[in-house]
This record gives sequence, structure tokens and C-alpha cells, in this order.
Amino acid sequence: VGTQARYRYMELAEQLLGRIEDGTFRVGDRLPSVRELKQQTGFSTATVCRALEEVERRGLAEARPRSGYFVLARSKPYFEVPMVSRRVQKPRPATVHALTESMVRGTGQTRLVPFGGAALSPELVPAVQLTRIAREVLAADSRVLFRYSEPAGLMELRRELAKRMLAARVDCSPEQIVVSAGCMDAIRLCLTAVCGPGDVVAVETPTFFGFLQLARDMRMSIIELPTDPTTGLDLDALERSLNRYPIKALLVTPSFQNPTGALMPEQNRRRLAALAGKHELAVIESDVYGELPFNGQRQPPVAAYDEQGWVMYCSSLSKSLAAGLRVGWTAPGRFLEPVRHLKLSTSICSPSFNQLVIREFLQSGGFDRHLRRLRGSLMRNMSATLDAMRRHLPAEIRVSDPRGGFLLWAELPATVKSDALYHAAKDAGVSVLPGAICASNRRFDSAIRINCGYRWNERMENGMRSLGQLCSRLSAAAREGS
Amino acid sequence: VGTQARYRYMELAEQLLGRIEDGTFRVGDRLPSVRELKQQTGFSTATVCRALEEVERRGLAEARPRSGYFVLARSKPYFEVPMVSRRVQKPRPATVHALTESMVRGTGQTRLVPFGGAALSPELVPAVQLTRIAREVLAADSRVLFRYSEPAGLMELRRELAKRMLAARVDCSPEQIVVSAGCMDAIRLCLTAVCGPGDVVAVETPTFFGFLQLARDMRMSIIELPTDPTTGLDLDALERSLNRYPIKALLVTPSFQNPTGALMPEQNRRRLAALAGKHELAVIESDVYGELPFNGQRQPPVAAYDEQGWVMYCSSLSKSLAAGLRVGWTAPGRFLEPVRHLKLSTSICSPSFNQLVIREFLQSGGFDRHLRRLRGSLMRNMSATLDAMRRHLPAEIRVSDPRGGFLLWAELPATVKSDALYHAAKDAGVSVLPGAICASNRRFDSAIRINCGYRWNERMENGMRSLGQLCSRLSAAAREGS
Repeated sequence: VGTQARYRYMELAEQLLGRIEDGTFRVGDRLPSVRELKQQTGFSTATVCRALEEVERRGLAEARPRSGYFVLARSKPYFEVPMVSRRVQKPRPATVHALTESMVRGTGQTRLVPFGGAALSPELVPAVQLTRIAREVLAADSRVLFRYSEPAGLMELRRELAKRMLAARVDCSPEQIVVSAGCMDAIRLCLTAVCGPGDVVAVETPTFFGFLQLARDMRMSIIELPTDPTTGLDLDALERSLNRYPIKALLVTPSFQNPTGALMPEQNRRRLAALAGKHELAVIESDVYGELPFNGQRQPPVAAYDEQGWVMYCSSLSKSLAAGLRVGWTAPGRFLEPVRHLKLSTSICSPSFNQLVIREFLQSGGFDRHLRRLRGSLMRNMSATLDAMRRHLPAEIRVSDPRGGFLLWAELPATVKSDALYHAAKDAGVSVLPGAICASNRRFDSAIRINCGYRWNERMENGMRSLGQLCSRLSAAAREGS
Repeated sequence: VGTQARYRYMELAEQLLGRIEDGTFRVGDRLPSVRELKQQTGFSTATVCRALEEVERRGLAEARPRSGYFVLARSKPYFEVPMVSRRVQKPRPATVHALTESMVRGTGQTRLVPFGGAALSPELVPAVQLTRIAREVLAADSRVLFRYSEPAGLMELRRELAKRMLAARVDCSPEQIVVSAGCMDAIRLCLTAVCGPGDVVAVETPTFFGFLQLARDMRMSIIELPTDPTTGLDLDALERSLNRYPIKALLVTPSFQNPTGALMPEQNRRRLAALAGKHELAVIESDVYGELPFNGQRQPPVAAYDEQGWVMYCSSLSKSLAAGLRVGWTAPGRFLEPVRHLKLSTSICSPSFNQLVIREFLQSGGFDRHLRRLRGSLMRNMSATLDAMRRHLPAEIRVSDPRGGFLLWAELPATVKSDALYHAAKDAGVSVLPGAICASNRRFDSAIRINCGYRWNERMENGMRSLGQLCSRLSAAAREGS
């Protein structure tokens, strides 16, 4: 290859990189094909291919077989990411922010612009296939509506779940799995198996508000551990706390954490599994967003690195397929027997119809096809959301930069209180999740969580514009007040 | 009406009563119609009608609109009913008999003669209608598989449930109801809302083994209260115990109790509701068999007499319609808010599809029609089971005489241990529930529970014959051994 050819492919690569940086090509977009680039530039196939490979080498695009190159995350995030305070407060009885319950009741109101929930848009789920499978399950044997199933779940479903876990490098037999009514039910089973009222449970901060509700309703104490919006739980803080307090369990979401979207790096996952064994800590791992990395590279869960069974893996299909069916599961490691007992004594068994629909869908191979499409859609939705945030929200906000899932976490100016914004936005027809409910202290009173599970459209754009106007108004009011 | 006519109707009434007593007409049978009796006797319509009314007046038959007269419970039971010990033991940590878990895993084995479970035969459930409704629900809106529902349950289902409760004289609004995944899930929600590990829960003895498992898994202590196989929980014993021990909650099944089939009389229900208020006792009432009285006269639940909200009503459709859908509910009285919170924090919501199928079935009016048929079938099944027990089991056994539901409780000779019988029966292809698992003491080691949810046939007859032979063999072995 001569000097000129080398120059040519670099020139083309730089052009493509520039158009990614300036937003011409956005995250999730397909880059022009080899044929198109040859026509546009007159370069040879080899030169064009090397240019595209260079873009990929820099981590800004990925090749997908028979589909072309797709833009990955942007090189320079629009926003700075939120900062983390390393301070750890002492354990205290779990409490819930006054807004939480009304917030939750409101998420069903479909007339609001849906930034508040953590749910997929109806167009993003494979309604036709799943409905066809549901009809087939009914037609095959109507006794499915009447009969009790095995308490731990239908064996044919557990086999499919074990296959998926193996694909995520968690080696677990169907007998080690207990089917549940969604992931929170799995977490409830695990938490009840390992601790009771008054015990200390560690959570990420900010965390999923549902974990705070669960700890409050089970009369537990919590310790809130610093969590980086990019790399997740601070393991140094966890280790210091383990040495100081009698922590019985940890509730953690290593992949695309709710609310930040943080992804725990592999070395941290290894270290967390080792810490669990060393400190005999039950790690309750929620992996509901684990199948949704934008680059398609699924991170093995912490359970994959666990050799002593201290990690209680929990997941569901609610964030990736069908929330309405309420099918989740747990592989609770060394706590299998108490969890099996609890499943039986607290709910007898799970509905067979719901289990069979999921089982048939998984077995059909449709899930992986669906996930490929879904990841691309979510990446584009998130990119569009970030673009709109840049257009409408104050420039000084800090925003997390998730590599998967569909939740964004934004820290607004300190003058904007999330509870006031929540109420004002609701009046303006927009739902948004106030950061205040994601912790028991006031650390996140000016943060919000934004759902990217819906396709961007004019209504969403108007909703974001409203949020921006409300931020300005609340800021101005705060400045006048001070 | 002249003397002779009066004599005639009494003569005919006595004949009918005699043929009920001697077993010609058995429980559940239809008596000859007015037309048939007129032809047989040559008596007038008025005389025949008065005779039938006299049989009804004596409580041995009931008129059903447009169907005729049906035989109610026999005047002389075949068997003596089991006796009750009035002794109350101190509270102790809940434990579970070693057989319980293997018993439960075995109930799914359909190759065994089904005396062991507490489930309805597939022919007794309205499979065709329910499947049609399920297809219609799917066709109407496939989003039902995908969407979250309100945490407390779909309002349109709660409205139907409130109507059913009102028909049972429990006045409760849809807002006071929380939908659950079957009755045990409702009981789990209620128990978790009112007590925690170490607290004392009162149960009937014998009781549903699932209550013992639940108390064990929630690390509670239990106090086992004497329970009469005919009238249910001994309220004197409850009151004495309330004065002596810090009892936080009572788990009770007033209608057709599991395992005895006992029906608590109305005055006891009133008294229990009053005791709950006086002692601030949370009464968790399971009413899963409440819709199944053979005479069609549904007893108002204890909740109907509760004025202060201490009764937490729990039920499901699992024992009367469709166990496989896992739809239950609770009306938890004064504990509504904590139960609502727990429902949300431990399972988010219930599956919409399952809720809508039940809702449509209830709204169609099909449930009452189905219940009328079901009660007749269960009454006939139980009668046939008692007949077979008389043919095959030792004459000295004592058997409960339930007026509804589908469970019979039999005390075998003391030489027959129920755990040994359970194992031997299983080897002989017959499932049976050992009384040993229905209490934490050894009081019921020689009792068994028999499921009457299946239509009697030759296979069932052979199963009962096997049980009889095994009883003889085990008795002989015990006598030889002693």
C-alpha cells in the first residue's frame, strides 16, 4: 500500500469521525455502506474498508454482520457527568420520600409525556409474535388456565432461562432457578430469605426508589453507598462499610443501573464477587437491564464471577419484552432452599399461561432478534433525548452517559428542586421522576431521571421544551427568593 | 284441607325421608318431580307439594328454582366425627414436618389417584368459557401482555370483586381491595403488614400445612388452637390464649376449613369479629372455600361482622374456578395502606391478562351458574367418597361431615400412622395427605385428608380399596410389633 492510499483512507476516516462528532451521524445511525462511499469518493473497496475499520478501531462505530457499520457512543459527551460524593452515612431505618407513592400512582396516566416511568413504548415490543404465541399456548391446552404448576416454576421455562444465563456466562442448572412474578418479587424472595426487620441492607445511592420502599415495608435499615453514574457502586466505600457495620445484604444493579444507567466494569464485578465471599455478604443482583447494551456486548453479571454462591441473581423480562406478563426469576446460589420454600409458602406457584408464553418466545429464538432491534431503537431514543436536552435544558446540567438500557440521570442547577419540577411538569402534562425519591437524604434533590423507552417525536420534543422552561422559571423564582 | 289429605302428605313425606335415610336418595340427588310423584301416588299436586315442602322443612332437601328438590346432608352421618382436645400449648417457633416438602412436590404427579391435593378435577371447571374469554381478552387489546397495571389491581376487576363481597354481606369499596397472586400471596401481604420474625401467630389445629410453612419461613412463633371438625376454631381457647400470650395475628378459615371442612356458625363469626376488636387482633381470614356450601347458602365471612377493620379478608378463585391464573385478593381493613405499599414494593403489580380474564368471567354472570353446578358435583363427589370409605376403610374411623368445599378429614385407628400410610399409598399409586403435616405436634399422626374435587370412578374406588388394605396391613404390623 502506497503513501497516497494510506493518506486517502485516513482522510476518509477523519471525515466520517468529524461527521460523527458534529452530530451528522448520531448514535445508532448506520454509516454509509462500502458501495455508497466508493461512489461518493471514487476510492477503492480496500481504501473504503480500511477507513471504516479505522472508525471502528477508535470505538465510534461497530460492524454488524450483513448490516454495515453503526455509530456507537459519541466521543465527547454533550454534558459533564454528575459527580460522586464519597461520604458514607451510618445505617438508618429505611424511609421513603413523601412523593414516592403519588409518583408511582401517576405513572399509569398515559396522557402525560412519558419521561417519568421506566417502561418501553408499545411499538418497541413484539406484540404480534407474542400475541400469536399466547393464542397458540391457549389452543394447545386450555388446562393451562386451571392447573397449578411446580412451585419453583415450569421446568421447560427454567431450562430456557438457564440457557440464557449460560449465554451470559452464569453456569446454573434449571434446578437452581426459582421463577417469580417479575424481578421485584424475586428480590423480595431473596431479601426475605437472608434478612428480617432491623437488619442492615446496603443500597446504591442514588438507587431505584422501589428498593427503598421494599426496605421500608420490610422494616429494615439501609446504608446508602456512593455510586458513580458511569462505573456504578463504589467498592472501596462498600468494603469500608462492611468492616464497620453488620451489613446483611446488598441490593445492586451492575448493568445500566436505575436511575443512573451506570455500567460496573468487569474488574469491579470480579472484586464484588470476591468481597461477597470474604464478608459472607448476600449480594442481590438485579440484571433487568443486562440484555440491553447498545454495542450488543452483554457484560457477564456479578453472579458469573461468584464461586461460593453468595450472589443471588434476579431478573425478569419486564424491561426487555413484556412487563404485563409478570415473569421473573432468581438463581439464589447458596440460598436456594430457603428461597424455594418461600416461593411455595408465599405464593404456591406462578401462573402457567404466563410462564409458557415466555418459554415459547424464548425457545422460538425470537428474543435475540427482538433484542438486536430493541438495542438499536433505545440507543437512537437516548441519542435523540440527549440532543433535545442540549436544545432545551440549562447548559450547566450534568448528565450520565449510559452505554445501554433506557434511563438517563441528570443533575439540574441546585436552584431547581426536583419535587417542585415534578409538580410543575405534571401540571404542564409532562411526567418526570424526581431524584429526591432515589435516596433517603437530600443529595439528589435537584436531579431527575428521564425515560428513553419511547420513540422521539414532536410530543416528546414539546415535553422537553416544557421541562426547560420550567427549569428557567424555577431557577428565576429561587434567585428572586434568595 | 281434610284429615285424610293431611295424612297423605305426611305419609309421602315420611316415605321420602325414609328413602333418604336408607341411602336410596343420596346427598346431591334430585328427588322425583311433582309430576312423577303424582303419577306414582295418584295424589293431588297440592298434596305432593306439601310433602316435598315437609322434607325441605326438616332440612333434608332444598328446592332449586326450575330444577326440583335436591337431597342435602344426611340425617345420620355414617361416621362419628373426630373429637377435639381442649388443651392449648404455649407458643413455639413454627416448624414444619419433614414430609411436607416432598408431599407438596409430589402433588403434581398426575399418575397417582388424587386424594392428596386440594384441587378440582379438570372436568369441573368451565374450560370452554374461560378459554373463549381468554381469547377475546387477547384479541381485544394485545397490549394486555405488555403493560403494567395499577399496583393494587385493575379497577374493573376490583369492582367485580367488591360486588361479590357485597353479595356475601361484606361492604367494601373497590379502593379497599388489593389484588394478589392467589390467596396465599394475599395472606403473605397481610401477615407481613402486621407482624415480623419472632411474633406469635395463632393457627387452627389441625391447619393448612401451608400456614405452618409460611410461619416457619417468616421465622414466626405459632400457637395452635383447638378446632372442632364441625364448628371450627374454639373461641374460648382463643380468648384464654389472647389473655395470656402476645398474639399478633390469627390465621383462620371459617368456611370449610382446610383440612377438616369445618364451618364456623354465625354466632361464632360475630364473636370472633368482636374479640378481634376487643383484643386488637389482626384476623387474617381465608375464604377460598366460602363460595362452595352444598345448600347454596353462603355464610357471610367474619369480615361481614367486623366494624373496626381488624379482619383482613383474603380469597382467590383457585378453589372455585381457575387455580392456574393465580388471581386472589385481600380487603385488609384498617391495614389497607401497609398492604398496598407491600403489594407495590414486593411485586409492582399483577399480570393484566390474568386479571382481565377473571374480570370478564365474573362480569358475564357465568360464575354463579358455574358455582351452582360445581356445588352439586362436589356434594355428590363427597357423598360417593363417604360411601367408598364405608366400604373400604376400618369401621372405627372418625370422619368429618362437611357442608361444603371438597375436603374430608378422617381419623384412622391409632395403630395406623399417616406418614407410613402416605409412603405405602404412594407406592401403591395413591396420593393422600398425612395429618402429621397439619400440626407441629403429634396429635394428628393418625389422621388423613381426602380430596373430593374429582368425580368418583373405578380408579378412585380402587384407590380407596388400596387405602383400606394398607390400613389393615399397617394395623396388623403395629399389633405384631407391640
